Amino acid sequence: MLAYPESAGGADDMGAFVAVFETLAHHDLSLLVKFGVQFGLFGGSVQHLGTERHLDVLRRAGTAELLGCFAMTEIGHGSNVREIETTATYDAESREFVLHSPSETAGKNWAGNAARHATMATVFAQLHVGEEHHGVHAFLVPIRGDDGRALPGVRIADNGAKMGLEGVDNGRIWFERVRVPKDALLDRFARVSDDGEYESPIPSDTKRFFTMVGTLVGGRISVGTAGVSVAKSALAIAVKYAIRRRQFGQPGEPEMKIMDYQTHQTRLMPQLARTYALHFAMRDLLERYRTATAEGEDLQAVEARAAGLKAYATWHGRDTLQVCRECCGGEGYALVNRIGAFMNDFEIFTTFEGDNMVLVQLLTRGLLSGYRRQFTNMDFFGILRFAKDWAQQKVEGINPMSGRSTDAETLRSRDHHLHVLHVREQQLLSSVAARLKKRLDAGLEGVDALNQVQDHVVSTGLAHVERITYEAMCDGIDACEDEALRARLDLLRALYGVHCLMEHRAWFLENGYFQGTQSRAIRDEFLALCAQVREEASALVEAFAVPGAVLAAPIAVSPSGHS
Amino acid sequence: MLAYPESAGGADDMGAFVAVFETLAHHDLSLLVKFGVQFGLFGGSVQHLGTERHLDVLRRAGTAELLGCFAMTEIGHGSNVREIETTATYDAESREFVLHSPSETAGKNWAGNAARHATMATVFAQLHVGEEHHGVHAFLVPIRGDDGRALPGVRIADNGAKMGLEGVDNGRIWFERVRVPKDALLDRFARVSDDGEYESPIPSDTKRFFTMVGTLVGGRISVGTAGVSVAKSALAIAVKYAIRRRQFGQPGEPEMKIMDYQTHQTRLMPQLARTYALHFAMRDLLERYRTATAEGEDLQAVEARAAGLKAYATWHGRDTLQVCRECCGGEGYALVNRIGAFMNDFEIFTTFEGDNMVLVQLLTRGLLSGYRRQFTNMDFFGILRFAKDWAQQKVEGINPMSGRSTDAETLRSRDHHLHVLHVREQQLLSSVAARLKKRLDAGLEGVDALNQVQDHVVSTGLAHVERITYEAMCDGIDACEDEALRARLDLLRALYGVHCLMEHRAWFLENGYFQGTQSRAIRDEFLALCAQVREEASALVEAFAVPGAVLAAPIAVSPSGHS
Repeated sequence: MLAYPESAGGADDMGAFVAVFETLAHHDLSLLVKFGVQFGLFGGSVQHLGTERHLDVLRRAGTAELLGCFAMTEIGHGSNVREIETTATYDAESREFVLHSPSETAGKNWAGNAARHATMATVFAQLHVGEEHHGVHAFLVPIRGDDGRALPGVRIADNGAKMGLEGVDNGRIWFERVRVPKDALLDRFARVSDDGEYESPIPSDTKRFFTMVGTLVGGRISVGTAGVSVAKSALAIAVKYAIRRRQFGQPGEPEMKIMDYQTHQTRLMPQLARTYALHFAMRDLLERYRTATAEGEDLQAVEARAAGLKAYATWHGRDTLQVCRECCGGEGYALVNRIGAFMNDFEIFTTFEGDNMVLVQLLTRGLLSGYRRQFTNMDFFGILRFAKDWAQQKVEGINPMSGRSTDAETLRSRDHHLHVLHVREQQLLSSVAARLKKRLDAGLEGVDALNQVQDHVVSTGLAHVERITYEAMCDGIDACEDEALRARLDLLRALYGVHCLMEHRAWFLENGYFQGTQSRAIRDEFLALCAQVREEASALVEAFAVPGAVLAAPIAVSPSGHS
Repeated sequence: MLAYPESAGGADDMGAFVAVFETLAHHDLSLLVKFGVQFGLFGGSVQHLGTERHLDVLRRAGTAELLGCFAMTEIGHGSNVREIETTATYDAESREFVLHSPSETAGKNWAGNAARHATMATVFAQLHVGEEHHGVHAFLVPIRGDDGRALPGVRIADNGAKMGLEGVDNGRIWFERVRVPKDALLDRFARVSDDGEYESPIPSDTKRFFTMVGTLVGGRISVGTAGVSVAKSALAIAVKYAIRRRQFGQPGEPEMKIMDYQTHQTRLMPQLARTYALHFAMRDLLERYRTATAEGEDLQAVEARAAGLKAYATWHGRDTLQVCRECCGGEGYALVNRIGAFMNDFEIFTTFEGDNMVLVQLLTRGLLSGYRRQFTNMDFFGILRFAKDWAQQKVEGINPMSGRSTDAETLRSRDHHLHVLHVREQQLLSSVAARLKKRLDAGLEGVDALNQVQDHVVSTGLAHVERITYEAMCDGIDACEDEALRARLDLLRALYGVHCLMEHRAWFLENGYFQGTQSRAIRDEFLALCAQVREEASALVEAFAVPGAVLAAPIAVSPSGHS
């Protein structure tokens, strides 16, 4: 497959892999998930956690000769992977691992490809060697024979009907002392010698765990990118419909295009601007991942960024679908017009590959600790040390001239947006650190302290994501050589920035950065920008270049010349 | 049927009808819609627009001996019913009306029951008698024979697969000069004499039109009530799951119940409070409707209230489902756990029985014009007269003592909330009137003037709905005789009020009603109230009294003693 090394028959091109993912997301999300599970999760786990001895498996995964699934989540543990129950016990005598589900809740859950197609699974389990427990490791376990039946000791159940993604065979898997050879351990970060000696280049259990699950980063980049794709499809459909559909108007005149109503503009145009912003942010993320991987850099910062952008982009995809459905009225509800089908299928993207709420908090903890892996799992004293630094840091104030400005030029300007978004992020980081420190100093348990500021932690993570998304958009615009195109992109940038400021104006007002006059001016500017972007809306959705045969919605077919 | 007069075999009990609707909404939404179309829309149109000569149809509709549908919306016209294309031309010679669809877009659209079951339709069409056009009227038109086939001249097509409500046979209907006898006209508000004289007790075309479509009010009350029911079901499922499901926690301790996480509380508890508030508001609305009907009062104010509450309650239902799905993670996506099924089926409730965006604007125009029907259809000079009064009105300021208060008692108090919500509504009404007046004075066309302040018009309508919802909740609490219960309801009231204030804090800050300190205090109070309501959450969802067999979700089965 495209992303795999050439030694396994791949093209060593992660960018090409994500491009396929991005494109499939315009078409059918069940197919997308089947593709992602087979080549991304299953193959990717072999690629990133395995070694040379697993190259043949990887090669066969890449040609789809070997179909696999990814069995990490359990019935009892979704987000908290470290506490999964499945065990893998080394039997030195036979040089085998024994995979076992000690309870009903230890069953692997929601594994795509498991219910019908996969013959092999990457299974995450607690490794026990002799008396010692070494935490979660991954194993290649055959689960189904060529006849399609579960192998002895393996029990598989279909997860049943879902609200969407009906083309994906999600399943549960339990193991009853299933034996696999020693080579089944994906042993890049830990190996067991024949006589039962455990060794790992990463001595810390916590660090090793996060290094292993860090390999999920590719999936999160892909899933976030799919969020941008569905937003593009939905906006293309809704805008094309809205510039053709007419309803109400001045008596005696043709009815008005619904795209000309202010509420239609204020609903669709900010989503369009954010879609463009995220288009650049996801590209930038992929490039950072490729660079870091190629240069052998530490991936923590990229992982944190991917976690935040996955959450932001999938929430954006979901919200955009929702708004577009409503803007298309009854026609939006017909499956033939695609938006409803996307809604049913896409809904779970905010949960899988990491629950969005959990991912945003992971990002904030990364920000607080300077992306040190050892602190990402509730090591509060570690976090505290860094929190102290943050808490003591003097946050730069907003330039009074800029904060008090009400003229359109300033309110739309890149410098103003960058400055204000940056100040907000720093201020939130600093105050969350201070509040955390206060609670820990007062003797509160780490979990409780963090829980009392959880709302704040989430806002902080999202503030960071908005700032980096905005920056990536600016960089993308700077790299654009066509002047006319740059001007249009800059209009979208202005709307994205003004919309961010407007959404957080309560915070800016509360903290004295804005006065009421600025806040009202920002809202007026927002309305003006929506109207201005609306004039370009038709061209801006055409630019997504989703072919008509792929977009396929009958309501999106517009006679030429409409705008 | 329950709501029909006794003379048609009914029980004359609208309350009982809505209670059935409310209850069915906990079970299956396709069945609910089939029920609503047959007895509410079809039967209701005969009841409210017909006369004694239609009693037999009404009786047979009530026993489901005669299955019907409601054909108002057309392919080309959804919200703008006044511009539908279907014509009904009186033929004095044969004493018949000729129903005709002059174009493809004149086809009736999305009519439930039409694609398969209905043998008769209430068809809305432009009435032409001789040379004169009298606007939209309703006719009873047989569309299908006992053999299930469309009658001659009638063409019926299925609307096709939808994102939900797959148990509803929505269809399109076109007429090719179909003749019906003179009695087919539902003639409560207009009749045609044998020799072709048109007469109506309501001389104004506009007023007559709005009087006729005003009969939709029952449907809007029912649909809004269903929004509250789905919110109750979803919250019962999500809360029961969240008090049992554990994930993460302090090392060495049992993992934490997810209900104890702050983000879980801030997501679910405000929805719970608003659900209770809307429970009282929908009851209050129904009571107003019954009283007004029984006493022969004008229904305009009730219609406007129903329009606003239908929008608010269905958006609430949708948002609650969304939040609950996400709070249940992957389990929320399984159809067996109901929330996903409700999402697919409920999504369109924000569009049907009146698009929410349109309904909220209808309400605001009603507020501006003092609920005068003649101004609800874009008579801007009429609205302007009232807008002037509003624009000149001195809006009461917020009591500085109360607006500047940061103590918990004041911030939670009923007086404070009522006062603040009232001031916000009045201020928005007054400023939207002033802005409208300014534009009309400057010579802008009415449609354009209204469109430039549309965003503001929507905020104004929603501010009104929040205030009346809050008031209805207070009245409901006052009427509760159990002191312990009253205290619990009062806690929900406090949360609902504080949440409203928090959501609009940018507006209050912008307009100088709150300072930053109050705004921050409100957020702290919000967090405290969420934690406090969480302690009662289990009992509060049990109180919805949805039987386990109806709730049915496996994740909602909790061993006793959990909370």
